[in-house]
Parts: sequence; structure tokens; C-alpha cells
Amino acid sequence: MSSSSPAPESPVLATARRAKEAAGLLAPLPRTARDAALTAVADALEARSEEVVRANAEDIARAREAGTPEAIVDRLTLTPERISAIAADVRDVIALPDPVGEVVRGSTLPNGLELRQVRVPLGVVGIIYEARPNVTVDAAALCLKSGNAVLLRGSSSAYASNTALVAVLRDAVEKAGLPADAVQLVPGESRDSVRELMRARGLVDVLIPRGGASLIRTVVNESTVPVIETGTGNCHVYVDEHADLDMAVRILVNSKAQRPSVCNAAETVLVHAGIAERFLPAALAALTEAGVTVHGDAAWRAAGTAAGVEVIPATDADWGTEYLSYDIAAAVVPDLDAAVAHIRRWTSGHTEAIVTKDTAAARRFVSRVDSTAVMVNASTRFTDGGQFGFGAEIGISTQKLHARGPMGLPELTSTTYVVTGDGHTRG
Amino acid sequence: MSSSSPAPESPVLATARRAKEAAGLLAPLPRTARDAALTAVADALEARSEEVVRANAEDIARAREAGTPEAIVDRLTLTPERISAIAADVRDVIALPDPVGEVVRGSTLPNGLELRQVRVPLGVVGIIYEARPNVTVDAAALCLKSGNAVLLRGSSSAYASNTALVAVLRDAVEKAGLPADAVQLVPGESRDSVRELMRARGLVDVLIPRGGASLIRTVVNESTVPVIETGTGNCHVYVDEHADLDMAVRILVNSKAQRPSVCNAAETVLVHAGIAERFLPAALAALTEAGVTVHGDAAWRAAGTAAGVEVIPATDADWGTEYLSYDIAAAVVPDLDAAVAHIRRWTSGHTEAIVTKDTAAARRFVSRVDSTAVMVNASTRFTDGGQFGFGAEIGISTQKLHARGPMGLPELTSTTYVVTGDGHTRG
Repeated sequence: MSSSSPAPESPVLATARRAKEAAGLLAPLPRTARDAALTAVADALEARSEEVVRANAEDIARAREAGTPEAIVDRLTLTPERISAIAADVRDVIALPDPVGEVVRGSTLPNGLELRQVRVPLGVVGIIYEARPNVTVDAAALCLKSGNAVLLRGSSSAYASNTALVAVLRDAVEKAGLPADAVQLVPGESRDSVRELMRARGLVDVLIPRGGASLIRTVVNESTVPVIETGTGNCHVYVDEHADLDMAVRILVNSKAQRPSVCNAAETVLVHAGIAERFLPAALAALTEAGVTVHGDAAWRAAGTAAGVEVIPATDADWGTEYLSYDIAAAVVPDLDAAVAHIRRWTSGHTEAIVTKDTAAARRFVSRVDSTAVMVNASTRFTDGGQFGFGAEIGISTQKLHARGPMGLPELTSTTYVVTGDGHTRG
Repeated sequence: MSSSSPAPESPVLATARRAKEAAGLLAPLPRTARDAALTAVADALEARSEEVVRANAEDIARAREAGTPEAIVDRLTLTPERISAIAADVRDVIALPDPVGEVVRGSTLPNGLELRQVRVPLGVVGIIYEARPNVTVDAAALCLKSGNAVLLRGSSSAYASNTALVAVLRDAVEKAGLPADAVQLVPGESRDSVRELMRARGLVDVLIPRGGASLIRTVVNESTVPVIETGTGNCHVYVDEHADLDMAVRILVNSKAQRPSVCNAAETVLVHAGIAERFLPAALAALTEAGVTVHGDAAWRAAGTAAGVEVIPATDADWGTEYLSYDIAAAVVPDLDAAVAHIRRWTSGHTEAIVTKDTAAARRFVSRVDSTAVMVNASTRFTDGGQFGFGAEIGISTQKLHARGPMGLPELTSTTYVVTGDGHTRG
């Protein structure tokens, strides 16, 4: 909305201004033009995979020199096969329905004015993300598909890889007749460039931070550009008095241990006192077998002692922690309402699950927790754009404005009202 | 999302915390309970109008002492008749469809999981507004209808009126069985209380500033609570080469002069060079008759000289100004694309209109400007929740995230995903 440009303009702001100009050119393009650019991107990634792998080797060498753990080096690594898989993802995005131009609401008003609320691109989308260079291509593809210009600010550990990938993307986009500045890497490897991006209100329409809790908190607190908060997941599994015991154990273990490093993994289990005596021994056995350490309240510690399993005493810090590891906080609660109160107090608002055979309990739980997703008799791990059938995901919003939950293409759009008359004036 | 409370807690934060607790109680209530509270509110306003009028008299006396212009004193004034009209507005809100519980999207996933995206209240809505005490009731009614707790921060000039109104509202809400803290006035008359409200992230879910550009800018820049930007309107009318001349004059005059003090009034007219020679004399005559002063470029000044009408030279400041008065900036542009470029450079993103008989021109204009609403052959004055048939409006968003354009009840909700299975786990 801002009109006058600050002087002298920094490289980051100049990049953002070019993105805004590109967004103006992208917005009116039909789907065919955007899809053609994405096809060109997929083809170019495969054709030029060697140069990307060469650049990636620099990042890997730097990471190894810095003593980076092999698991993280692996996440950073690009091979021709991995690049082909990334190109295949781009082709999947091409096949998705076009969100732009969808009429969300429409009517003819009593005075004959024709009112249509139509999806339009957001404009300039800034993505701030960590480590994995595949996000560079994924995010660019989703933004292009939805008619947005994208500003990519990846981690400095992937700077060479991202620079090479963005060069490939820009060439392909330009050869397809779209402005190259539809895809840009934010210049600079320091934190200052992030700070400038967060202040580019009027040039950047939204910032989406993807990564650790500290990155997200910084962006949320310091940005004057609107932010979509993503990802932090302190998820709960509540085992109701009327739960199927076997189902509850299966859902708990799956929620916690199927992939503990992700945001939709469970971090706390709450158990109704009426079922604790039967559930805790079964749960402890299954969790232990899955390699999970329990941080429990008195009831869980007593059950641990009885079962010969060590249960670490839980403190308030445990209720508030997103472990992202084979650890879980565990408490027994007197009833469903106490479980809801615990969750409302400690949750990050991502995903909560209830296991129960009682429809009234399920209904009460669903209407009283206040989170992005509520699972009834299902694992917390299902909160995911792919699982929900959205075909693509640019992040999982845990905020309430604009988008809540897995964000697909429609969440990368805004709307505008188009009102058509034949000389209508207000009396 | 935040979990630990700062200590010692200020009165503003304590108010926000009570609002959050009330929101937790409101969210699961069915429509009948919320509607009953609104009926109680409407009845109580009429039954207790005398005490509200008495409090209002204090504000009026203070305003007169301070030399406030009579037009503003009039906006501040409450009479039994005006209070009845406000109560009638509350009854209109009761009749609107319930946004809460609406299933926005739903499907059964391939694995049998039932997915529903359901509208839920936002939680705690903070409204920061100026002068008119009727906003106090309107905003509270819309928030209650949509299941939200509301924090009201009106202008200090209406403090006595707002205090009396909120007392009536709280009593009525409580008698209807809802928590009184669903409606609260933010304590304190100083700017500090606004500042605290803007920092209450985790307690307040959204802030909606309603009022002048400076208030809105302050909130947008300083708030860590998510903000919905409303209202600033630097609206444009573009008269295309292929416009119906009479229609263009009517739409221009209506857009500018039907009610110049509001955000959807036009502030700039742009005229295609190919029609300028015929349009400018007609427009100058009609604008002058409507009492409008033109701030024009060279072409408009020349037309003014020829017509014997004074046209003030326009500077860049004029293109960026929301006059909110009987003034308009005016330029001749070489073609439609130049009009679009001018608008994209200077607009606040509220409403733009094109007058044309040419469908291709209309299509090009609609797809290239980037604003909340685009009028084709209609006055800018139609961007309004009432005109759009939404039945109520808490403001007009000029931002792209969450809500764009007139905000009705659905815009006061978020959504949550409810996923139901029978023991589903991820493989």
C-alpha cells in the first residue's frame, strides 16, 4: 500500500520492489502461461541437475568442515535422483486445480449490480526457511502456480545450492515468457537481510517462516509485513474413560513415535483417571518398546515403578515442550474437562486427538479445544496437506487468521470483489 | 498460544485474560444461546436508555467545553430514539445466518477418515475505534453473534457513554447466562492502554482498528497481535476512451460527492486522453455544481481556464491524499495501462472504478488493478457490507490476508479441521 520508496534503497528492498513489479505482470496471466512456466522449470531442473549438484557439493563441504551431523548433511544433499524427484513434485503441482479466478461468492444485488468475489494471487510471498534446498523449488512452484512472485530466503548453509537452483528456475521462467523476477533469492547471508525483509511492508504481502520455533517467534514478533505462523506443534493425545484400550495404545504410539521429528507428532498424553489403571501399564509397555521415554506425573511414575520402567518426573516445562524426539509428557486427569483445560493452557494450537467410544465425549472435546485440527480416534500425524488430499503444502498454519491448518494453493490467494453495473450510483 | 503470564499483570492484560476465558466458554454455545443474549441486549438498551443518555451528556458537556465542532458533537450524541435504532440494529444481527459451525470443506479421505473444515469463533476480538458510541454496541453484537469475546477500546471522548453502554451490555449478557466478560471495555483512557492491547499476543486473537489513517498506521506498525487493516480509501475513477459520457459524469460525481467523508468516496479521477476533450468540460461543470474543488494536471487546468473554473495545480501529494472532503485530484492519462500504473502506484487498495462500454477494457482493468473492489460502470460508493447484502459490517479490510473488503460475520471466524476415524494410524 505504501507509495514512496526509501532512499537509498538496500539490495533486499530493491529485490522486493522487483518482485512487486513481477507480481503485477503475473496476476493477469491465464493458467496456461503459469503451467507452461512450471513445465519449463521441471524440465530445466533435470537438464541442469549436474550444475546444481556441483553447487550443492560446496554446501556439503562447508557443512562437513563445520562438523555438521551427518543426518543434517543428508537433508542438505542433492543428487540427480533427488533432483528428478523434485522435478516430479513440480509436475504434480501443475496438475492441481487453479485457485486463481475461482468465484468464492457471487450474487445479483437487488439493484441489479452483479457482485462476484474472485480469488486473486496474494502478490509477493516471502518464504524464510531452513536447511533443505528442496523447499526452494517446492515453494517457488506453489507460488508460481497461484500467480504469486516469491522471495526465497533459505538458510546460509544451503546458499550455494539455493543460488544454483534459483538460477535454473529464473532462466526457465523467463524462457517461458514470464518475468524472471517472479522467483528471487533474497540477497545476503546474514540475519540483516531477514530483518529487512520483515520491514518491507507494502512491497511484500505475506511472510511465511518455515523452520524452528525460534525462527518463527522472531519473525512473528519483529515483522511489520503480515506473517502466517507455521508449524510449532505441541500436540496432545487424550485417552478418554470410554476409549478402546488397544486403539488408544496404537494411536498414542503412532502419534508419538511414527516420526517424532515433525510438528504433528504428539508431545503429551493425558489419560482419564477412570481408565488409567488399565491403560498406563499397556501404554508404558508399548511406548518403551517404541523407544519412547516418558516424563510423567505421580500416577505415571507409580505405574512405571510397578512395571519396572523408568518414568522421569515431569515439570511444567515438560507440558510446554515440543520435544521433537522420542520423549513424551504424560499425566492422568480427573475428567475430560480437565484434559481440555490442560490442553488450552499448554497447547501450541496445532493438533489434539481424543480416543473414545463415547460420541458425547468426542463432541464435547471437539467443541472445547481450540486448535488447528482435532482428531477423533485417529493419530495426530494426519494433520498434513498430503494426507488431507490438498496435493501440496507450503506449511501448516497454527494461527487463526487467513489460513489455519495445512496451506495449499487456495491459501496462497486473496480475493477481490468485482462489481458490474450499467451506470449505478448510490442515492 | 503463549502459556505463561507476565507478572505483575496490568489491568489491560488482566482484562484480556478474562476475555480469553470467556471466549472458551462462548465457543461451544449453540446459536440459540447467543441469540438469546443479543435479544437481552436489545431489550436492555431500550429499557435503560435514560441512564445511557445521562452518561452521554457528560461526554457532550466535555466535548463542548473543549470546543469540539458541532458536527462531531452530533456524532457523539445519543438520544432515546438513537438508542432504539441501535437496539433495532442488534435485532437485525440476530436474524443473520449463524457463521459458527458452517462446514466450509469436507470429504471422506481414501483411507476412510472423515475430514471437515468447520467455522469456529476467532476467540478474542479487539476493536479500537474513534468517536461514535454506536460502534460499541454494533461491534459487541457482531462479536457475540459470531461467538467471540470482544475487547472495546473506544475514544476517550466517548468514555462515559461507552462505560454506560458496556455496563448495560454486560448485565444483559450475564442475565442471559453468558459470561459478562464476553463484553469488556479496555480500562484506561490513555494511549498506553492501546499499546498494551497491541502487545497482548496469545490473549487477543485479532485487533481491528477503525478510524483515521494515523490510528490505523500506528496499530499496524506496533501490534504483535495480528491486525486487520481497515478503511483507508484513496479510491480512483477511471474514465475510459470508450465511456458513455453522461454515465461517466454521473458515476464520478456520485463517487466523489454523494458522501465525501467516507472511505469509499473517490479521491482521484483519471481520464483517457482520447475522451478528455469532451469529458473534461462536462465533468468540471458537474463537479463545480456539486461543490467539488479540482486539483488537476496541466490538461485539467487548461480545461478549467477554458471553462472559467479554477483548477488547483496537483502535486504528487494530491495523488496520495485521501481528502475525505469536496476535493478531487484529476489527471489525463495516455491510455488504460497508464491509468492502471497510476492506480497501482498511489492507491490505498480500497476501491477503483472504470467507466467504459468496451468489455476488453473492463476485463483488462479488472485483472490489472490490485484493490479490494473494482467497479465496472458503477460508483465507488457501493463498497459497503450493507450494499453487498452482508447485513452487517465490522469494517472494510484493505489488506489481503484473512479478509478483504467489507467484513461480515464469516470474517469474524476462523476454521478448524475435525477428522474422525476408527483407530486410524499412519503407516
